[in-house]
Amino acid sequence: MPVNLSAPVAAQLLPVAGISLGVAEAGIKRAHRKDLLVIKLDEGATVAGVFTTNRFCAAPVTVAREHLAAGRGIRALVVNTGNANAGTGEQGMAAARTTCSELAKLLGCTPEQVLPYSTGVIMEPLPVDRIVAGMPQAVANLKADNWFDAAHAIMTTDIVAKAVSRRVQIGGKTVTVTGISKGSGMIHPNMATMLGYIATDAAIAQPLLQQMVSEAANRSFNCITVDGDTSTNDALMLIATGKSGVAIDASNRAALQAVVTEVATVLAQAIVRDGEGATKFITIKVEGGKDEAECKKIGYAIAHSPLVKTAFFASDPNLGRILAAIGYAGVTDLDVETLTLYLDHVLVAENGGRAASYQEEDGQRVMKQSDITIRVVLNRGAVNATLWTCDFSYDYVKINASYRS
Amino acid sequence: MPVNLSAPVAAQLLPVAGISLGVAEAGIKRAHRKDLLVIKLDEGATVAGVFTTNRFCAAPVTVAREHLAAGRGIRALVVNTGNANAGTGEQGMAAARTTCSELAKLLGCTPEQVLPYSTGVIMEPLPVDRIVAGMPQAVANLKADNWFDAAHAIMTTDIVAKAVSRRVQIGGKTVTVTGISKGSGMIHPNMATMLGYIATDAAIAQPLLQQMVSEAANRSFNCITVDGDTSTNDALMLIATGKSGVAIDASNRAALQAVVTEVATVLAQAIVRDGEGATKFITIKVEGGKDEAECKKIGYAIAHSPLVKTAFFASDPNLGRILAAIGYAGVTDLDVETLTLYLDHVLVAENGGRAASYQEEDGQRVMKQSDITIRVVLNRGAVNATLWTCDFSYDYVKINASYRS
Repeated sequence: MPVNLSAPVAAQLLPVAGISLGVAEAGIKRAHRKDLLVIKLDEGATVAGVFTTNRFCAAPVTVAREHLAAGRGIRALVVNTGNANAGTGEQGMAAARTTCSELAKLLGCTPEQVLPYSTGVIMEPLPVDRIVAGMPQAVANLKADNWFDAAHAIMTTDIVAKAVSRRVQIGGKTVTVTGISKGSGMIHPNMATMLGYIATDAAIAQPLLQQMVSEAANRSFNCITVDGDTSTNDALMLIATGKSGVAIDASNRAALQAVVTEVATVLAQAIVRDGEGATKFITIKVEGGKDEAECKKIGYAIAHSPLVKTAFFASDPNLGRILAAIGYAGVTDLDVETLTLYLDHVLVAENGGRAASYQEEDGQRVMKQSDITIRVVLNRGAVNATLWTCDFSYDYVKINASYRS
Repeated sequence: MPVNLSAPVAAQLLPVAGISLGVAEAGIKRAHRKDLLVIKLDEGATVAGVFTTNRFCAAPVTVAREHLAAGRGIRALVVNTGNANAGTGEQGMAAARTTCSELAKLLGCTPEQVLPYSTGVIMEPLPVDRIVAGMPQAVANLKADNWFDAAHAIMTTDIVAKAVSRRVQIGGKTVTVTGISKGSGMIHPNMATMLGYIATDAAIAQPLLQQMVSEAANRSFNCITVDGDTSTNDALMLIATGKSGVAIDASNRAALQAVVTEVATVLAQAIVRDGEGATKFITIKVEGGKDEAECKKIGYAIAHSPLVKTAFFASDPNLGRILAAIGYAGVTDLDVETLTLYLDHVLVAENGGRAASYQEEDGQRVMKQSDITIRVVLNRGAVNATLWTCDFSYDYVKINASYRS
């Protein structure tokens, strides 16, 4: 079950002027399930995004990149679940293009003004006919106050939908930021996560919007991992409609960046809290490093270690496994004598070994919590990094040994 | 249960002249369990080894490196299970030194002529008093025909003991090679494995012996992974007693190298076949790469993917997960359109997607086997690499969620 993660409340999700959303039951993988989402943008909106670095990226990722680069003004995004359209070759590219052209016909725009997204099983042909057949239902359903259903329509193995809104005052006016995300397994984003969509009614030119989404991704989706598997379909999109009348530039960027990054962080952490089989939410802080790269190396070595993750599942303070992961992280000049390791506020290790003050019952007490912080202080520099991950349970194996069937 | 792995037969393990082995029940972690091994070498033997690259390497690894470098002529190796003596700081170093000096007293050599090894739980003080108390029993038990008991005395979570012998004719004389290993979890060797000891009665000078053990390790223990966790205690040792009267140099090295590498490969594969919770033994061949590094990157990405490993556990040909792993392996200029993927002899993917000839029932048939080969042909160079791994089951989580208790 999700770790300290509440389902979103429909009434708390704020519409973003200039955006309407429609969902449909297209029967892509199973019947009677919301599996198709159309996000329609009013003219004048800007869109930026970051995508998976997986070389086997999905066909819709390739098409979305092309259409963004065309710069024709994006008018719609379309998302299907149940099939990733990845590892599908030329047939998959044709299916992604058909998705765009058919939606363009319905909305009265060009195919290049539509961005496609898919998530689900890899290397199976996309049932594009079902997606096309479901589009009129999604278009008929378009409304501004529909983020709650949209968050549900993009779920796959997610147990809880992920959505959040924030408001911020900029120049005396109110700017709204609302975002949704999905993801639960195959989570180790590298420039983006499974799928995330964040919208604001501020006006932001494309180059700045791209900077803002990259910065938000680097502080949020690029700091989470469930299983170390980088998906073929990851995408995080930021949409700015301009309808609030607030124009963002370098002078007033900071206030909105903070809110966009906060929304991205809430959505990214929700993916970890809803990680497949997760029973613990683990924050990993690596402090006092020479640079961010070495902090993240050590953080991910801990976060990806099946031995660390199973010990947390068992609430067993078998904390030598964390030392082992730090040791093999690939920081070749690391002096293990000078680092300190804390579990929440309990000092666990120093001087290359277990701290004299450490008591098993203190470690045991922290391990039984559902939210735990591992803190590694390297004492060799001034850079910090924070990652989030979850534990590794029977249910992770169960879910992934039976996902397709 | 171990995958297609038979227990060694005592009568098939060949003594190596110049070496005797003794075991004891020292009660290091549990009572009534063989947990201490002494390997005594006649004067004149040479010893070489490769050790873990983990920065949190165990105290005995540090001491063994020192004693090897001292070049005083090694007369004994001592191995305990039940405690890794890693992450134990200065106290751990003192315990490793005491182990050597106490055994040296019993055997009439110097402490620098003894090499210590430990395996077991990390970051708990080594009960060195119990090891010292058990030594006389192990020394009294010393005999040449004792490899079978020795293989049992170094087991931790291993279900099956690992030992093998080979003979080879060199210059008209018979040379014997016998080896033992242990390991089941925290297996992702990087220069060595958990613990492996191979002995031959050939005469080999130390510099050549070091080359031979490194080459054997790179083709065997450095090609396996169970869970991607590189241990703090990995060591692979090669001992040459010279008692056969066959001297090895560059001119006749090849024949013995082949046998040493074969013994190392059998022992390394046995570790994977006995991997914690393993139900499948998976050979990963990456062919046609530009260099070995990129072949191993792709091989390990597949081997470490929890999604791939759980699909194999389920016998589910959800083979898109293999494509995803290839895609995120970090080979940044990889053209996924030109590679082909086979499962045993079944062509699964080509031209960036599922092969037209691929039938689900063919994939299903192979997935149900207990020995499976994944073959990735990159079609961009002439270099190949082979790795071995196992699947990821409920029992891996069970074993590692309860290992300490």
